[in-house]
Amino acid sequence: MFKRLSAEFLGTFWLVFGGCGSAVLAAALPEVGIGYLGVSFAFGLTVLTMAYAVGGISGGHFNPAVSVGLLVAGKFPAHKLVGYVIAQVLGAIAAAAVIYLIASGKGDFQLGGFAANGYGAHSPGGYSLTAALVAEVVLTAFFLFIILGSTHGRVPAGFAPIAIGLALTLIHLVSIPVTNTSVNPARSTGQALFVGDWAVAQLWLFWVAPIVGAAIAGIVWKIVGDDD
Amino acid sequence: MFKRLSAEFLGTFWLVFGGCGSAVLAAALPEVGIGYLGVSFAFGLTVLTMAYAVGGISGGHFNPAVSVGLLVAGKFPAHKLVGYVIAQVLGAIAAAAVIYLIASGKGDFQLGGFAANGYGAHSPGGYSLTAALVAEVVLTAFFLFIILGSTHGRVPAGFAPIAIGLALTLIHLVSIPVTNTSVNPARSTGQALFVGDWAVAQLWLFWVAPIVGAAIAGIVWKIVGDDD
Amino acid sequence: MFKRLSAEFLGTFWLVFGGCGSAVLAAALPEVGIGYLGVSFAFGLTVLTMAYAVGGISGGHFNPAVSVGLLVAGKFPAHKLVGYVIAQVLGAIAAAAVIYLIASGKGDFQLGGFAANGYGAHSPGGYSLTAALVAEVVLTAFFLFIILGSTHGRVPAGFAPIAIGLALTLIHLVSIPVTNTSVNPARSTGQALFVGDWAVAQLWLFWVAPIVGAAIAGIVWKIVGDDD
Amino acid sequence: MFKRLSAEFLGTFWLVFGGCGSAVLAAALPEVGIGYLGVSFAFGLTVLTMAYAVGGISGGHFNPAVSVGLLVAGKFPAHKLVGYVIAQVLGAIAAAAVIYLIASGKGDFQLGGFAANGYGAHSPGGYSLTAALVAEVVLTAFFLFIILGSTHGRVPAGFAPIAIGLALTLIHLVSIPVTNTSVNPARSTGQALFVGDWAVAQLWLFWVAPIVGAAIAGIVWKIVGDDD
Repeated sequence: MFKRLSAEFLGTFWLVFGGCGSAVLAAALPEVGIGYLGVSFAFGLTVLTMAYAVGGISGGHFNPAVSVGLLVAGKFPAHKLVGYVIAQVLGAIAAAAVIYLIASGKGDFQLGGFAANGYGAHSPGGYSLTAALVAEVVLTAFFLFIILGSTHGRVPAGFAPIAIGLALTLIHLVSIPVTNTSVNPARSTGQALFVGDWAVAQLWLFWVAPIVGAAIAGIVWKIVGDDD
Repeated sequence: MFKRLSAEFLGTFWLVFGGCGSAVLAAALPEVGIGYLGVSFAFGLTVLTMAYAVGGISGGHFNPAVSVGLLVAGKFPAHKLVGYVIAQVLGAIAAAAVIYLIASGKGDFQLGGFAANGYGAHSPGGYSLTAALVAEVVLTAFFLFIILGSTHGRVPAGFAPIAIGLALTLIHLVSIPVTNTSVNPARSTGQALFVGDWAVAQLWLFWVAPIVGAAIAGIVWKIVGDDD
Repeated sequence: MFKRLSAEFLGTFWLVFGGCGSAVLAAALPEVGIGYLGVSFAFGLTVLTMAYAVGGISGGHFNPAVSVGLLVAGKFPAHKLVGYVIAQVLGAIAAAAVIYLIASGKGDFQLGGFAANGYGAHSPGGYSLTAALVAEVVLTAFFLFIILGSTHGRVPAGFAPIAIGLALTLIHLVSIPVTNTSVNPARSTGQALFVGDWAVAQLWLFWVAPIVGAAIAGIVWKIVGDDD
Repeated sequence: MFKRLSAEFLGTFWLVFGGCGSAVLAAALPEVGIGYLGVSFAFGLTVLTMAYAVGGISGGHFNPAVSVGLLVAGKFPAHKLVGYVIAQVLGAIAAAAVIYLIASGKGDFQLGGFAANGYGAHSPGGYSLTAALVAEVVLTAFFLFIILGSTHGRVPAGFAPIAIGLALTLIHLVSIPVTNTSVNPARSTGQALFVGDWAVAQLWLFWVAPIVGAAIAGIVWKIVGDDD
């Protein structure tokens, strides 16, 4: 169990450090900045790379909504859930701290949004709470479909990290303007703690919506996708 | 059959929600927008991800032109065609509705082109009907060549979703300026219904051209590619 | 042999139509254009996709320099070379013609550089003949190393199209500013015939340099890489 | 051993020529330049492609920090280390020389930063020495985790070059603004020798930090990741 939890800690650290780190450090530079496209690839590649690295140890969830979705679909035992979620949240907080340490080493550093998730006035594009809720539920549900489907025995071994990682890239390509994209309560929590204020006040949505979406996917998958 | 049609519905929903959603929500933002490059990746990744997730259930067409092309090539039975096409079109319409719901949650929302396909005055770059027709026929034909070739027994199992998904990315890299890129009548129909007017009036081309291209590919493939 | 030559014709058509087509139609649009990054992906994905589709039929060269390099390395029989090169050049010319047909369907069409290759005054960034020569020789040599290495028995089956396609993407990321990137005499010939004038006058370099680079790689590989 | 060292020389040449070459030649062009996103893909694709090409010969390190990390983790014999590091540094210097040759073929050539690594006043974004040190240590450590994990017997054969190459892309997406991204002392050395002055004076950090990070990863991996 120590190895599993370490893997979840390291994997979620990498997800937040790579994804949010690229957003904070490299997204909005004039001329050469990586933009939302680069941030989308960064998030996806964190999961692609660590799923290959430690997926065989812990399953490679790196995300409380994924753990819940797999539990609902009957692919993850309930007694491991709490430990996984704690390791994931701790990994995300540690990553946010290291991003803060690096970002504050710039002379004219300002915290800004710090890649936290938000809706309404704190949505990057000014999208409403309803829009944010719908986007997070639908996108997390499809994220789980892809995880459940690509790890199914029907698919040749080894391809799942590509499908899952690039699904997270796709999800960001759609929804960074809406909520800055969560689909992952741990990722949202790490950044929110450093921003405080509105980010903590809005954090509930980024626990509720991804977990609801993941649970729906787990149920639908049992009807539509599973047959072994 | 219920599982197959559900898979086609979900897959086409994801194709339109991810591809058109990224175009509507994230393409044209100043500085950090994902541009046509990001939209091209989004479309490709919808197919790559869902082909891994549900390709083993339905074959992963998500596109009436693909179903027709496979039928012409002798890889898909005629009696399943109507059900597949209906599920695909319904999935596309449902996705367009959810994109509308999210997009309209932005304060200064305007429908605009809503990622509908068009030619002449409604081509993003002002390309003529002939240019649009040629582009859609040629690109859909090659899309089918790649589908037929990469799912052939000669290719090791598991790589087809990468080839097919990235083919769709490539197709968009070439032709978004010409027609906003269809190669998929279901995708065109969903968006056109929300735009109405010119988008519905021009919709015929985005059924005719992709299906003609796919049928040509099915015939050519039987001569050039098939040998088992 | 008819199937092999058809595969080379179609594959080279797709390489030029996808790569040069994206450059002509989509690269330089304001705000949302795909830029050199998008063109680089387009070229790479043409090879990745068609190598999966028809690589099992013809070997998937799509490029006279590749055929020569494989011949020098002892992996391709000399008596097939002329047929392959003719099919490749015809495929490239056909693709350039279709790009011309589509591009000229735009109201304010101007031929411009039409994605032809050049050096000196016709290098996109104004690079000298020497710089162009060095870049094309070195990049084609490494392209062949990657082709020879990734199709070697040491590498698990199925991954070579990914390595080779993305190598072509990488090559374009480096050298579009230098020569518009050839490493492929067929690709250069198709576009040059439509531009005429300087493009035809400079075409010699884009036959000589890629073929010299490929031949060097074939020789070096026999010393360094081959051991079966 | 000659073949192994040749493979390391060629691989590191390609890493620097492709990665730094794209940065020097193509990153900052107005409108169509590839930006930090394109440079990030270029670096990653150098490793992805050459790991397929020659990974089976030398292991595909192309980086002294990787050789050290593998040694600490018990996956690489100490008596080979010096030879590997020398071949890697020579490959990097040769690549920098060829980039210089090409780049200086442009009429208005200026050496500029020449893609050298730096901190403080020579960090692209003005990040402090501490920020640079933390970023390089953490990113190299995770690079090694991904290398050690994806080449482990748990992962199906053939996927490691994808995971490792795209990890290097991700690392660049995060940290080009901080240090221009090293995580590779050989890559830093080649460019620094041509810039001289500050780049040589700051070179120590880009040997120390990556090697420390890699060694930490080697130790942690033995505790967390290894079980065969």
